[in-house]
Amino acid sequence: MKAVRLHEYGTDPSIDDVPEPTISGPWDVIVDVGAAGLCRTDLHIIEGQWDPIQHPSLPYILGHENAGTVREVGSAVSNVAVGDTVIMHPLTSCGLCPACRVGQDSHCEHASFPGINADGGMAQQLRTNARAVVRLDAGVDPKDVAALADAGLTAYHAVRKAAPLLFPGSHAVVVGAGGLGHIGIQTLAAITSAEITVVDRSEQALELAAQLGAHHTVLSTDDDDAVAKQVLDITGGGAHILFDYVGERGAELLATRLLRNRGSHYVIGYGGEVRIPTIEIISREINVIGNLVGTYNDLVELMTLTAQGRVQLHTAVYPLDAVHDAIHDLEAGRLIGRGILVP
Amino acid sequence: MKAVRLHEYGTDPSIDDVPEPTISGPWDVIVDVGAAGLCRTDLHIIEGQWDPIQHPSLPYILGHENAGTVREVGSAVSNVAVGDTVIMHPLTSCGLCPACRVGQDSHCEHASFPGINADGGMAQQLRTNARAVVRLDAGVDPKDVAALADAGLTAYHAVRKAAPLLFPGSHAVVVGAGGLGHIGIQTLAAITSAEITVVDRSEQALELAAQLGAHHTVLSTDDDDAVAKQVLDITGGGAHILFDYVGERGAELLATRLLRNRGSHYVIGYGGEVRIPTIEIISREINVIGNLVGTYNDLVELMTLTAQGRVQLHTAVYPLDAVHDAIHDLEAGRLIGRGILVP
Amino acid sequence: MKAVRLHEYGTDPSIDDVPEPTISGPWDVIVDVGAAGLCRTDLHIIEGQWDPIQHPSLPYILGHENAGTVREVGSAVSNVAVGDTVIMHPLTSCGLCPACRVGQDSHCEHASFPGINADGGMAQQLRTNARAVVRLDAGVDPKDVAALADAGLTAYHAVRKAAPLLFPGSHAVVVGAGGLGHIGIQTLAAITSAEITVVDRSEQALELAAQLGAHHTVLSTDDDDAVAKQVLDITGGGAHILFDYVGERGAELLATRLLRNRGSHYVIGYGGEVRIPTIEIISREINVIGNLVGTYNDLVELMTLTAQGRVQLHTAVYPLDAVHDAIHDLEAGRLIGRGILVP
Amino acid sequence: MKAVRLHEYGTDPSIDDVPEPTISGPWDVIVDVGAAGLCRTDLHIIEGQWDPIQHPSLPYILGHENAGTVREVGSAVSNVAVGDTVIMHPLTSCGLCPACRVGQDSHCEHASFPGINADGGMAQQLRTNARAVVRLDAGVDPKDVAALADAGLTAYHAVRKAAPLLFPGSHAVVVGAGGLGHIGIQTLAAITSAEITVVDRSEQALELAAQLGAHHTVLSTDDDDAVAKQVLDITGGGAHILFDYVGERGAELLATRLLRNRGSHYVIGYGGEVRIPTIEIISREINVIGNLVGTYNDLVELMTLTAQGRVQLHTAVYPLDAVHDAIHDLEAGRLIGRGILVP
Repeated sequence: MKAVRLHEYGTDPSIDDVPEPTISGPWDVIVDVGAAGLCRTDLHIIEGQWDPIQHPSLPYILGHENAGTVREVGSAVSNVAVGDTVIMHPLTSCGLCPACRVGQDSHCEHASFPGINADGGMAQQLRTNARAVVRLDAGVDPKDVAALADAGLTAYHAVRKAAPLLFPGSHAVVVGAGGLGHIGIQTLAAITSAEITVVDRSEQALELAAQLGAHHTVLSTDDDDAVAKQVLDITGGGAHILFDYVGERGAELLATRLLRNRGSHYVIGYGGEVRIPTIEIISREINVIGNLVGTYNDLVELMTLTAQGRVQLHTAVYPLDAVHDAIHDLEAGRLIGRGILVP
Repeated sequence: MKAVRLHEYGTDPSIDDVPEPTISGPWDVIVDVGAAGLCRTDLHIIEGQWDPIQHPSLPYILGHENAGTVREVGSAVSNVAVGDTVIMHPLTSCGLCPACRVGQDSHCEHASFPGINADGGMAQQLRTNARAVVRLDAGVDPKDVAALADAGLTAYHAVRKAAPLLFPGSHAVVVGAGGLGHIGIQTLAAITSAEITVVDRSEQALELAAQLGAHHTVLSTDDDDAVAKQVLDITGGGAHILFDYVGERGAELLATRLLRNRGSHYVIGYGGEVRIPTIEIISREINVIGNLVGTYNDLVELMTLTAQGRVQLHTAVYPLDAVHDAIHDLEAGRLIGRGILVP
Repeated sequence: MKAVRLHEYGTDPSIDDVPEPTISGPWDVIVDVGAAGLCRTDLHIIEGQWDPIQHPSLPYILGHENAGTVREVGSAVSNVAVGDTVIMHPLTSCGLCPACRVGQDSHCEHASFPGINADGGMAQQLRTNARAVVRLDAGVDPKDVAALADAGLTAYHAVRKAAPLLFPGSHAVVVGAGGLGHIGIQTLAAITSAEITVVDRSEQALELAAQLGAHHTVLSTDDDDAVAKQVLDITGGGAHILFDYVGERGAELLATRLLRNRGSHYVIGYGGEVRIPTIEIISREINVIGNLVGTYNDLVELMTLTAQGRVQLHTAVYPLDAVHDAIHDLEAGRLIGRGILVP
Repeated sequence: MKAVRLHEYGTDPSIDDVPEPTISGPWDVIVDVGAAGLCRTDLHIIEGQWDPIQHPSLPYILGHENAGTVREVGSAVSNVAVGDTVIMHPLTSCGLCPACRVGQDSHCEHASFPGINADGGMAQQLRTNARAVVRLDAGVDPKDVAALADAGLTAYHAVRKAAPLLFPGSHAVVVGAGGLGHIGIQTLAAITSAEITVVDRSEQALELAAQLGAHHTVLSTDDDDAVAKQVLDITGGGAHILFDYVGERGAELLATRLLRNRGSHYVIGYGGEVRIPTIEIISREINVIGNLVGTYNDLVELMTLTAQGRVQLHTAVYPLDAVHDAIHDLEAGRLIGRGILVP
């Protein structure tokens, strides 16, 4: 089959002809890939940034946001059948470790992460497992949802964790209305009654944010004082919950200034370093909350919101053979919305 | 009456003769001070560190950890009567602002903080209000509990917030077994079933920790790698909850290394700066949790634990006139346990 | 001033000329009543049903759902000023008892309940206290919100308690789309992402429910089996949370059948008796959850939702002098929406 | 192998020679049974009470509380190895259904329940699955823990659910200090700081309760008024949480009277019917909370408490061949502590 494989860090992946995956265990599931998302994480992988954390064996197939149709199942698989339309949770969790037993399967001790440390979905077929597959309505088109499998799931996970704190009258501030942020805004509007303020450096992104449910928008500039003042004015003293979908280039430091006392800075984006004096942490009783990709249940819920029409992705679809165009468009900022590869 | 007043930052307070406080509002309560705690915060106040945050008008009476006997009450006070033994929550909260309405009175928008930004309890009498006083059994001696009013309350508040996460088999790591930490350890043992590991630079402090309920102790040194290795071994991968009662001199940075994935760093001590790369915050999904002084309800619960004999303070008692001895002993490290001034 | 007073159970109240209320304590607030709600509870009061629980001294002024304008404040009142538009929480809580200290002021040990056990708001003026008043935007018309002060607040309180359990894909079933239920449906739609199914005996009520946010409606009949089957089909096995706004005439028994395993029956309406075999409670691990009127914070949040246009009341306005017409219309089922008296 | 099989309801089971179980799926685990608990549920099974709920095919092997040593594992089992000492969660859950995915595996949609609806552990060998086995320290003797697998687990589950509500100064009331209750008391003392009051009809049971951690005991009689008065006096107004380990013979009705406002009645025992007027449920805002057997995680935690010496079982050990003696002793009230069968 055709597959997009990374052979060397710093070099474009190549389109190779490789053997099809086979069932090797009772919980395995082989999927005919319908669509695979392409995102900045793929660029970081190609650059080699994830090597020290995930150390995959090169060459391997990229693609960690996948949806498609079940082709074959292992002997113990009972939750999906051949022909089912499915989206894949990024991790093939074990169901036995302590994290899995409490529903925190994104911390599974024995999971593989196709596309990150094992062969992924930028190919005609993908091997995953029974605990990763979420069955979708037959009418769902994989290319409309694939990009929710990781980026969207991460955006939602943070919102879901914070939701019980976002009562009527509370203020959610979203920093970054890009790929993750625009899912965050939609899910905030869908599952909470918070007043939503969005901060971004792009006027275009802010316009989209307003359409997706933001009640207020603030154009970010290099003048942090001015940005902070606007946000504190709008929110009457700062965010109850700040969702930082950027996590670098100063956003991670500005965050603290945008919180009200007892507020929480939810870190989702990454690249920078959080730095806060302990006297400020305690005197304001503020929190910094880490957010990984979502759980399997988060993905089920996100698919529910999608089926209800409450979450919509803007996508740019490329055939698998055009992966290099897609990569270069993404690098050059020409790729508007989420990139999708269709084998 | 006699009162210990601070006239100038950087200079010892003096013992002055000042007018007695009077009832000025319907919720005021005048207390005959039975005991006032002396702690490192008083040293920081004298040094001027709290001036930019609380900006009191000098001269004013020190003493923010107070217990005594009700002497006089305002017209609307219904919860205590003249003659009652009481301990004072450090804040005279309003009962009307949003924080007060949800029981988060330590964030009251209109509170004064006697001893910090208003006349405190190192005096024969103190003015507080009805919402600050907790009635105690008549037999309680103020000097046995006064130091719990702020330092002990802060130590307990963090433990109380974390308690629902500390199930059997979970690991609580306490960094710093000093004035706050030794209350933290006792309350951890009293209200949770966590396995408790204590890290401190003093062997003597670790011995006390073991007596108070620590299951494991680790002598801290300048070799952070060695300390981290020991803690990770004992805890099988790191703390679920780490209570940082130091917050400076490197403890605030070591903390991150002592957490397991999904763990939380509860900041209580202060002085340093938390610094964590956002990639680490998200990939490990770890949290940093701020902790201010406790709420009124926390103080009620802490008094319950004290009455049950589950929390005990080591104190060194000085007459009010010997306040300079007490301060100098505290500065010089000669004051073992919590310093108590008795007018 | 004019006031609607109950002199004898079982007899219509009369419109009396009585002295105006006066400030008697530092936290008192006198309000010029702008509107007072009339609801079935008033009928129950007149019948004497509440006498054994609240035992007011007759005669007294009815009216427990009140909004208006501040006329005079006691010496310690800092949160509202003369001229402010306000809605009143039904209870004048103390701010000192344990329930008040944790924000559960609807369980205050020292509260009075104007209109239930003290003079209420069916009059030109009402005496309440600082802890009961919620300040509104100057533009709010008291008659548009008064009925939210008790009935609406009760409806919302139950929804607010359940909200953290109502994630995407969960099923909320509302039994009774009348005075309380139609507020419950609106607030469910506003603050949760649950799929909402409404059960009522009136087709007209179901039509309104659909307009207010219900996704499914079921016409209730005497055939409980048929109703249960429909609800179980729609919800894929029963409600995660069932809101019983009826609580009598069989609804309180049908409720158990409409729950899925691990589901909860939120009781809000009353009159009947819940009866469940313990074997069923444990084998299905189901819960019965009591719901009193909301807290002060609930009322603040409900006013926020109202200001955002997410909650709307259907009202029928009568001048205070026409209170007998209003009562008789309510008794006869001619009063559509919530009855409002304007002095 | 030898096995205790039930052939007909109402008749003693017989000791049969049956084929050994075999691995039939990749997640199967065969255990050499070290001990099987015998409890009142077995008597109810023999009487036929569970037939309409679980409808097993007769004859089948009894025994739903099992511990032993792993003998053989299926191809996909990674969490235990041959020779490991294990205790079995009563359910062989699937790991794929919604309940399993959130850690609520006791509500698994596809589980079998050995000893209840499939062959159980009163035999030399038992077939279970990977998701049911909890690995124990090699030194643990199966007969010391087997009875915790169901009865103890149920007792603990309710305590664990309530624990976050049981802060210092709160009152837990335990009704019934028998087989389940005496585990409930020990775990309450181990994981909460509540003040514990135990109500039982047996003075001997109350003496044991006091040794196990009860702070107060009340001898129950037919005079409910007197019992209620004592409990209300001790608790200052009633239980915050009442654990009803009886659930029949009046205990289920008395419970409501022993609650304070906002309190919760945790139902664990069964046989009777809860009956509460809705007016009482709402005016006191009280709750009835169902409690099934615990989850896998609950069992892990309970084993931790047991290993720490905080939970101890009183047992009466019989060889498997003496199962009839054990059953008749249990029926006749001669079996003190938990009955244990050793093959």
